[in-house]
Amino acid sequence: MNLNPEESRSRLTNARVARLATITPSGEPHIVPVTFAIKESTLYIAVDHKPKTHRALQRIKNIKANPAVSVLADHYAEDWTTLWWTRADGTATITEDETPIDLLVAKYPQYQETRPHGPVIEVRIHHWTGWSYTYSSHTDSLGSPSSARAESTNS
Amino acid sequence: MNLNPEESRSRLTNARVARLATITPSGEPHIVPVTFAIKESTLYIAVDHKPKTHRALQRIKNIKANPAVSVLADHYAEDWTTLWWTRADGTATITEDETPIDLLVAKYPQYQETRPHGPVIEVRIHHWTGWSYTYSSHTDSLGSPSSARAESTNS
Repeated sequence: MNLNPEESRSRLTNARVARLATITPSGEPHIVPVTFAIKESTLYIAVDHKPKTHRALQRIKNIKANPAVSVLADHYAEDWTTLWWTRADGTATITEDETPIDLLVAKYPQYQETRPHGPVIEVRIHHWTGWSYTYSSHTDSLGSPSSARAESTNS
Repeated sequence: MNLNPEESRSRLTNARVARLATITPSGEPHIVPVTFAIKESTLYIAVDHKPKTHRALQRIKNIKANPAVSVLADHYAEDWTTLWWTRADGTATITEDETPIDLLVAKYPQYQETRPHGPVIEVRIHHWTGWSYTYSSHTDSLGSPSSARAESTNS
């Protein structure tokens, strides 16, 4: 069944990894896994590469040519009744402001040892979508799936 | 460090879930998690939705408008020295031939109970890419990481 925007946002915010899809200047889709942090309706991705190489990153080139991006997190297990995913569509900019890196450091202890430097990909989310085979709000207590039937979303 | 195409193909083939990125007719990226099977240089994705709704699926509309797709699998764990990902870029077609569904049924026991029906998304892969923090071939015995240093890929 489809998840409402608030539930989709909650699940994506709590996910540890997501995938960033962008479009190359020649019009092909491009995907990479990313760490990220969300505050309100903005999603931040650190570009934690060496300063000399980060400007050559394909994802940066893509966003400069086309700011439309999509970010997906999903849960997979062999018990397919537990499957779910959540997606955020938005518009990205590259910023040299390193303030959002605090959010990433707070979320990932790994970044406390080696703090990422800028730039940061900042995504203004305009659409939250999600799907779950069965619905159980992650803000509810665990182990209390609703009796809602699974439905397909047109994705 | 970057993975060679053979290692990238091997890891993607063995992954249980991947993400399919396509481009919408209005030029925005779109991602969904997918189950899939790979044979040689072709990747197959079942569209296991009700016959009346599958033709409305966004991914099908996208591929009909733009056949360029990208498929990603990744490994995430809190120990970031174990991270890796692998990606296949290719050209997709929608086929009514249900023969490739045998590959999906062989890979996923879940499909043995409820065999998916067509159509099938068929992706001819023209490019395999991959990255691993440390390199240990999945075809080697486990627990024998090479001493290769981690390097960045421009993704």
